[in-house]
Amino acid sequence: MAERDYIGFATLAEQVHRKSVKRGFEFTMMVCGETGLGKSTLINTLFLTELYGQRTVPPVEERIEKTTRIDKKTLDIEEKGVKLRLTIVDTPGFGDAVNCEDSWRVCTQYIDEQFRQYFTDESGLNRRNIQDNRVHCLLYFVPPYGRSLRQMDIELLRRMHKKVNIILVIGKADTLTPKEVKSLKARILEDIETHGIQIYRLPDCDSDEDEAFKRQDRELKASLPFAVVGSNQVMEVAGRKIRCRQYPWGVVDVENSEYSDVGKLRTMLISTHMQDLKDTTRDIHYENFRAQCISQISQHALRERNKLKHESTASNHELTDAERLLLLQKDEEVLIRRMRDMLAEMQEKLETTTTNDAVVDV
Amino acid sequence: MAERDYIGFATLAEQVHRKSVKRGFEFTMMVCGETGLGKSTLINTLFLTELYGQRTVPPVEERIEKTTRIDKKTLDIEEKGVKLRLTIVDTPGFGDAVNCEDSWRVCTQYIDEQFRQYFTDESGLNRRNIQDNRVHCLLYFVPPYGRSLRQMDIELLRRMHKKVNIILVIGKADTLTPKEVKSLKARILEDIETHGIQIYRLPDCDSDEDEAFKRQDRELKASLPFAVVGSNQVMEVAGRKIRCRQYPWGVVDVENSEYSDVGKLRTMLISTHMQDLKDTTRDIHYENFRAQCISQISQHALRERNKLKHESTASNHELTDAERLLLLQKDEEVLIRRMRDMLAEMQEKLETTTTNDAVVDV
Repeated sequence: MAERDYIGFATLAEQVHRKSVKRGFEFTMMVCGETGLGKSTLINTLFLTELYGQRTVPPVEERIEKTTRIDKKTLDIEEKGVKLRLTIVDTPGFGDAVNCEDSWRVCTQYIDEQFRQYFTDESGLNRRNIQDNRVHCLLYFVPPYGRSLRQMDIELLRRMHKKVNIILVIGKADTLTPKEVKSLKARILEDIETHGIQIYRLPDCDSDEDEAFKRQDRELKASLPFAVVGSNQVMEVAGRKIRCRQYPWGVVDVENSEYSDVGKLRTMLISTHMQDLKDTTRDIHYENFRAQCISQISQHALRERNKLKHESTASNHELTDAERLLLLQKDEEVLIRRMRDMLAEMQEKLETTTTNDAVVDV
Repeated sequence: MAERDYIGFATLAEQVHRKSVKRGFEFTMMVCGETGLGKSTLINTLFLTELYGQRTVPPVEERIEKTTRIDKKTLDIEEKGVKLRLTIVDTPGFGDAVNCEDSWRVCTQYIDEQFRQYFTDESGLNRRNIQDNRVHCLLYFVPPYGRSLRQMDIELLRRMHKKVNIILVIGKADTLTPKEVKSLKARILEDIETHGIQIYRLPDCDSDEDEAFKRQDRELKASLPFAVVGSNQVMEVAGRKIRCRQYPWGVVDVENSEYSDVGKLRTMLISTHMQDLKDTTRDIHYENFRAQCISQISQHALRERNKLKHESTASNHELTDAERLLLLQKDEEVLIRRMRDMLAEMQEKLETTTTNDAVVDV
């Protein structure tokens, strides 16, 4: 045995813990799905808030002309000393117009715009107070009344799945019997598989996790996509306050895991995988975007250079990533040198002809 | 009261905690000070290891010619499930040569080189597996026998203090009486103040920390610079194994906080401030380096542009950071456009003279 029991660096994780609590957390979630699927109510239910109050939904004729808007709401909440700044990016009007392209473009553009802003900021000189508005997940609402995903769902998901962590939910699932929920989930998963759509995949559970965590993880994975019921109505049942929906044939407790996945969705989104959603956004989606940006910049520079080159012999061959990067870094330098040479050459030619001119004049 | 007690995001810090433990930690420390001040022994003592075994120190005539080398050792240690990859950057030969400039250059260059490598890597396309070799702190050994800092200490510290977190230690403090330690510490602090040297400053303690933590923090701050005694000899005293030095007049227990700051140094370096040293390196020192790099690149581009400009009227005025950044981003674009214009102009001129030429020929 050593002379002391410990060096003391086991506190490192606590140092990180302490710092992260002090800083507070931020999370940004986008919500998509057509009007009437209970998006706002679900957000209220998930975060036990009244972020979205009573609204008067405009009549169809007013909505039909409207384009999809981005509606951003920020909520500062604190729990057990932990601060969370939650941003919900709602997309009212999504899917209401006749042409869906508009809705899709608004959503993808918004996500790209946040990435681009972050790319500019993190490439800038002062990086102390970067406002990070990157979207960490997209809660996409599938209607409960369809057979599975519709063509428009598939098209949108295809446009989004490389940009953001997609979490699918079946909205207003209290219109479905347990059997119907089961088969709808199965068909949706099948469609996703068939069309090669990558929804957010919960990471594999480490073998050294405890049994309770592993079981929870299995249950979460088995429940995808989550069938949810939201409610703004709170009532007391058997001395316990619950969010529920009251039908003549019975009361739907939105937290009852026998028929509603609201609890599981909340667990995954908030208690167990929020940090992973952020990490995946940063390490995968943002890095993809950034690589595309850099690649575009370098290709642009390459084209410019080729335009300026008079030698038509050098073929514009495909470049590897490494070459492209090298080009990006060296391009300005190379460009300047090359243009200097050209200028010198032309200057010389110019002087020669001018001299000839002068000789003739004499 | 809400219908549920909690939303569940208080686990966010635990999610971060869990992830950071899974990833493991890395820490890089540089050690500087002339031969014979007990650098290696102190490292062994701090990390309860035998990283540096018995060495035969070469005689003076061999050492006098030698230049300062960089000697990097990596140690993978685990404690209570937390993994730490510790890198010690030793600088054998430091201060042994007649001309100290060499020692200083080796150290500052090493630190800059790690920053530059990181800058290149984080500007690159693939950032998945960046090896971060940035130096998180410099343990600088002051000899116990001087009156205070020597001119060469001051010169080196001045060259380093904007690049790295400096922690000063008085080596072999067992040659000093408590009174001597106290006055040497006071004079060193005075010198630092006088010469405007910024050593690593422990951050202010939050008011909501518990009393024990606050007391420890006060004690650490009051003990700077740390007077240390190291030892490779382990002996059992009163049933307890201690690292000590045995003199005819008594036994020096290196962990005894009454006369050795080894315990405090270990506490600060490892248990309480390791993460802050890393954060300060990343947020302050590296960001400074990066800003300088970008500024140099943009100034270089600006000079190139000015060289190419024939208009001598536009004065090369001082630019603000924002302008410089804008320039950096826009420079290539502007440059290309400007040169195209110039080329077109010259081409035109060339053609005109050639035509004139032709006319004369006829």
